Amino acid sequence: MKNTFGNSVTVTLFGESHGPEIGAVLDGLPSGIPVDEAYISERLRLRRPAGGISTARQEADPFRIVSGVFEGKTTGTPLAILIPNGDVRSKDYTFGPVRPGHADYTGHIRYSGFEDYRGGGHFSGRITAALVAAGAVLSYALEQKGIRIGTHIARCAGISDAGFSDRPEADIEKLNRMEFAVLDEARGEEMRAAAERAAEEGDSVGGVLETLVTGVPAGVGEPWFDTVEGVLSHALFSIPAVKGVEFGDGFGMADRRGSETNDAFVLQDGKTVTRTNHNGGINGGISNGMPIIFRCAVKPTPSIALPQDSVNAEGTREEKLTLAGRHDPAIVHRARVVVDSTAALVLCDALALRFGTDWLKGDPV
Amino acid sequence: MKNTFGNSVTVTLFGESHGPEIGAVLDGLPSGIPVDEAYISERLRLRRPAGGISTARQEADPFRIVSGVFEGKTTGTPLAILIPNGDVRSKDYTFGPVRPGHADYTGHIRYSGFEDYRGGGHFSGRITAALVAAGAVLSYALEQKGIRIGTHIARCAGISDAGFSDRPEADIEKLNRMEFAVLDEARGEEMRAAAERAAEEGDSVGGVLETLVTGVPAGVGEPWFDTVEGVLSHALFSIPAVKGVEFGDGFGMADRRGSETNDAFVLQDGKTVTRTNHNGGINGGISNGMPIIFRCAVKPTPSIALPQDSVNAEGTREEKLTLAGRHDPAIVHRARVVVDSTAALVLCDALALRFGTDWLKGDPV
Amino acid sequence: MKNTFGNSVTVTLFGESHGPEIGAVLDGLPSGIPVDEAYISERLRLRRPAGGISTARQEADPFRIVSGVFEGKTTGTPLAILIPNGDVRSKDYTFGPVRPGHADYTGHIRYSGFEDYRGGGHFSGRITAALVAAGAVLSYALEQKGIRIGTHIARCAGISDAGFSDRPEADIEKLNRMEFAVLDEARGEEMRAAAERAAEEGDSVGGVLETLVTGVPAGVGEPWFDTVEGVLSHALFSIPAVKGVEFGDGFGMADRRGSETNDAFVLQDGKTVTRTNHNGGINGGISNGMPIIFRCAVKPTPSIALPQDSVNAEGTREEKLTLAGRHDPAIVHRARVVVDSTAALVLCDALALRFGTDWLKGDPV
Amino acid sequence: MKNTFGNSVTVTLFGESHGPEIGAVLDGLPSGIPVDEAYISERLRLRRPAGGISTARQEADPFRIVSGVFEGKTTGTPLAILIPNGDVRSKDYTFGPVRPGHADYTGHIRYSGFEDYRGGGHFSGRITAALVAAGAVLSYALEQKGIRIGTHIARCAGISDAGFSDRPEADIEKLNRMEFAVLDEARGEEMRAAAERAAEEGDSVGGVLETLVTGVPAGVGEPWFDTVEGVLSHALFSIPAVKGVEFGDGFGMADRRGSETNDAFVLQDGKTVTRTNHNGGINGGISNGMPIIFRCAVKPTPSIALPQDSVNAEGTREEKLTLAGRHDPAIVHRARVVVDSTAALVLCDALALRFGTDWLKGDPV
Repeated sequence: MKNTFGNSVTVTLFGESHGPEIGAVLDGLPSGIPVDEAYISERLRLRRPAGGISTARQEADPFRIVSGVFEGKTTGTPLAILIPNGDVRSKDYTFGPVRPGHADYTGHIRYSGFEDYRGGGHFSGRITAALVAAGAVLSYALEQKGIRIGTHIARCAGISDAGFSDRPEADIEKLNRMEFAVLDEARGEEMRAAAERAAEEGDSVGGVLETLVTGVPAGVGEPWFDTVEGVLSHALFSIPAVKGVEFGDGFGMADRRGSETNDAFVLQDGKTVTRTNHNGGINGGISNGMPIIFRCAVKPTPSIALPQDSVNAEGTREEKLTLAGRHDPAIVHRARVVVDSTAALVLCDALALRFGTDWLKGDPV
Repeated sequence: MKNTFGNSVTVTLFGESHGPEIGAVLDGLPSGIPVDEAYISERLRLRRPAGGISTARQEADPFRIVSGVFEGKTTGTPLAILIPNGDVRSKDYTFGPVRPGHADYTGHIRYSGFEDYRGGGHFSGRITAALVAAGAVLSYALEQKGIRIGTHIARCAGISDAGFSDRPEADIEKLNRMEFAVLDEARGEEMRAAAERAAEEGDSVGGVLETLVTGVPAGVGEPWFDTVEGVLSHALFSIPAVKGVEFGDGFGMADRRGSETNDAFVLQDGKTVTRTNHNGGINGGISNGMPIIFRCAVKPTPSIALPQDSVNAEGTREEKLTLAGRHDPAIVHRARVVVDSTAALVLCDALALRFGTDWLKGDPV
Repeated sequence: MKNTFGNSVTVTLFGESHGPEIGAVLDGLPSGIPVDEAYISERLRLRRPAGGISTARQEADPFRIVSGVFEGKTTGTPLAILIPNGDVRSKDYTFGPVRPGHADYTGHIRYSGFEDYRGGGHFSGRITAALVAAGAVLSYALEQKGIRIGTHIARCAGISDAGFSDRPEADIEKLNRMEFAVLDEARGEEMRAAAERAAEEGDSVGGVLETLVTGVPAGVGEPWFDTVEGVLSHALFSIPAVKGVEFGDGFGMADRRGSETNDAFVLQDGKTVTRTNHNGGINGGISNGMPIIFRCAVKPTPSIALPQDSVNAEGTREEKLTLAGRHDPAIVHRARVVVDSTAALVLCDALALRFGTDWLKGDPV
Repeated sequence: MKNTFGNSVTVTLFGESHGPEIGAVLDGLPSGIPVDEAYISERLRLRRPAGGISTARQEADPFRIVSGVFEGKTTGTPLAILIPNGDVRSKDYTFGPVRPGHADYTGHIRYSGFEDYRGGGHFSGRITAALVAAGAVLSYALEQKGIRIGTHIARCAGISDAGFSDRPEADIEKLNRMEFAVLDEARGEEMRAAAERAAEEGDSVGGVLETLVTGVPAGVGEPWFDTVEGVLSHALFSIPAVKGVEFGDGFGMADRRGSETNDAFVLQDGKTVTRTNHNGGINGGISNGMPIIFRCAVKPTPSIALPQDSVNAEGTREEKLTLAGRHDPAIVHRARVVVDSTAALVLCDALALRFGTDWLKGDPV
């Protein structure tokens, strides 16, 4: 399996940056799930809040659903979404030196020189638009079941956001309306300013996304190999620029002691919960009913204006590379909704495997 | 798919901590791979170097291969390895309060109270012995092809090891003979002392494992979804206590700039290589021919002697939990060979998918 | 996995009979395979040779490839093909009594009443157009490797065609140009006449398709569970109306003796071959280098003009069903190219698993 | 995936005919299913009712369950069953001419000469004992849910058995106690006599197995590609000697008309049923609530005493082959319980995917 992910609920991605259309096929959905096109549009808009960090709001990508929806609801058969690549420029591309930090070189080796190299081809972040459109259908369904997913820019350009409050669902609701999703807007302003400075210097910045998922029932996941952590990370590492994934306190647990990281069990309103959540809602690969927490490390955008050393694709000579045009100095804010969509896909699949194909359309848990 | 992992080369795990035997079935192997039982024994020994941090060397687990090997070589049909649980005590177990940081509670929910709770059952780290035995067959085969995997304890109890030298293959060879695998043995001594201190205080410590893989050819992996990072992390998160996985500079890239993390391409002896390796040998999910580097965050052993708050499995009352006996204050050193084995499995599978089922038995690349 | 089939080379299908577009995503292809749009058109034309048995030739379905092809060759990333449903009538459909022999009732139960019931929705034979388009890309590639697939109508309306001659590749070439694919054209005329008679009586006829594949090297397939027979039959039973699949002499072997069905091995030009081919080129689930032979039973078209007993979808009352309009009295001739396409998919996948992703673009075997 | 089958409920097979042990790992089971070892023994006994057709009853294979069962019930984690190969003779084997109709030649090519050729190795029918043991756990669970599977020898040596009566569940109960499972015992005697005659002439006979499954709810299966027919046939073709699979009237539908094969829907006690069952309980790949009916063509045992033409494994010279010892003149009666076990596996998996992992332990439907 390559461009298809999932066991019971699956997504298949296709398209290239400069091809006519990109798209996704969602399969294994329960029938009867309402499909809200305005919601999908809104999610797509959040993926492209700005041409650069500070550019004005743009319209979302147009899309069309060509199958799997009938009278406004899912049929249960494959839902295919297509998004045209409207802004593809007609000028001829030449395949210059391979761009450091990009997939130009590995794509050239993997596909023996037959790859569509224009704008990164199938490796382009552009493909995430199809993933977001598909994820929107799933996120909407999860919300009906009381499961909510929200992500904030926990760190960007060396500046940290505030953490989630003790009212995480309100935080999530707020984040899902923001283009630059932070819990502390003043910190967000600092991040943007720092990213702008990097841009002015022809450079780019990285960051960390932190995601919280509430409402997942205990008992989802497997001890080997389909742990919640394992399946989520598998999908998350597909997102271009993600180079690390951690759950709960993650790498921070490495320097602590067991007495500091074990989450004590207590009873609350007759229900077993943990007093702390260092393990991010997962024990032994299985959800424990607490919020699921994970973080993704997002590397700085590899497209920078500064000149770089490189070689030609054939590997026959070294060449200097200078990329033309203005480049986004950060992608962490755009990757946010892609992370949410990916999480929605993984959770829908895990829930369908555990509780059957129709669970998602039942009443809230 | 639950306890089976892989597409072309697969492993299936079974067994419980206190059952009669645990085991693994390796499938999709090429035929004709030599199976060296002494090598497997040695790898199993490295998984249990010490009852505690400082205990004297013990004998490796006995194991038997009941299928898939004929006249000392793989047949290409499933290779099943069984390991008896020799040290299981006959005394009656009672299922006390669920242990914080363990899977007792989630296992109870997931399996509706029918789980074998004794010693963690199927969630136990004991199961990793089967994974190590299976991985040893694969590691041995990879070595014949010039692919080498080595892991050191990059951090433990807040103390950092030295990094890999500029002769990584020599480092790997050395690490693969050590019970407590560090590159700087003085630092290793400090780590052990710190872990001992934690043990004396009834507590435990965590750490970070750093793995280097040399010899993987460029062009292995997929852009979506079976990136090298994604598939490796999927498998690695099955290892009990792993709570984070990062590639190359990982989370460290979040605070840097693109000009600092892009790996410039240069020609070396007519071959395309990167001058630095911040991306850990992977661009766009595909190997670029440089060493693959990743790190796993290992949380402190959840079994600690200090009293802890908990509830009974049924969730009807709160209870204090005090675990009897002496507990390993760290597992990071034992998880090392499990990480190596997991990496061997993932790489063999990716290579078989890319180059066919018989690639592994061909000449070195 | 539902609408996706394959392990290394996969196809994903989507669309409904009366939706705007149907399509297929082909993944796992090697890069560099020429994509011949005229060849695809020709294959699509063969799927619809006639509105009824005797209607004049129609134009093939228009299609467009929106990804995975660059400068006339596969890129190795997903190839998505879309086919508009041009002839969808705008009139309102009502969901009458469920049609016997069709999937109206099971679709209604499976999808809880949310299915797109118009024209059979996702169950419609219409979806096979997407499979044929995808299969054409694969068939073309297989031909470059010297692997040829051909199917004839071995039986229709109780009339048998002649068998393959001792020059099967010439037979295949001829069959692949015919709209009503028979080896003996006089028998074909009889079949058509018999089907016409059934149509005049408001009824329909069934048949048997026999497929021959030449050029598959020995050693492809697995003993358990991915036998060549098993994987082929898995895919073939998706084709609407297929109710039986047999290999070699198939059910005919049940009444014979071992001495009559064992294929003796002999040497021919220094190569091991079998003197007869009762086993259809497969022993123990693995190809033996002889032509692969299989047959599919195709039931009579369930859409007939005669009045039928039925119930409404809700199962609350019995109703008589009379289908309006003229219906194809047979689909066996149209299913032919769908069988070929399905076989191409299964073989490409098996060959890629065995020999690696790039085998298909190498020189002929 | 090779020796593992299934999506949510899976089985993994391992072992060779002359290795120390064979076995199976069942995964994805719900927890809390009673495991009845006497029932497993009985099913294993039915797989080997006689050394030849007429030999006296033998004891069933000893087996041991080493994981996945705790206090007599499934834990929900992998259940591994091991069966020792007690009767392996110690004498040296030499690899003579490849046996016609067997997998000796294809195994030699597939595994490059490293296969364990003794007694057919991993291709041996011996491996089906592990499948039967695993299937027994599943059959038992299905019975608790009101789903019953029974198979009779519909044809053997050219003699037909009677068909199922209008009380199929009573038929199934009777069949599941018989060693030579026929509905008409007089016909069974004739079959045995005919098989005996073939044996005396150094030859063997084939047959047809017909299976009926009652109690499967409507709405299970998928239109593409995981049709009930497709997944069942995929698994069934793994059973050595099966060369054809058909559902309902199968190949018999090819010569009929639509008016004869469409199953009219009627209401019975307020429930939608079909008046006839030519489609074998499946429309559009999905169960319709009627009994599922399928037939497997079983070729004559390829091991015969008559001398045969063959070549050596290396393909360097032609050699006459004469197999020593007495051989079973038929395997159709032994394959019966293997078919039942395979059907149980496929149905449990399909039901778990549709209704969730715990469905199987709920109350009868």
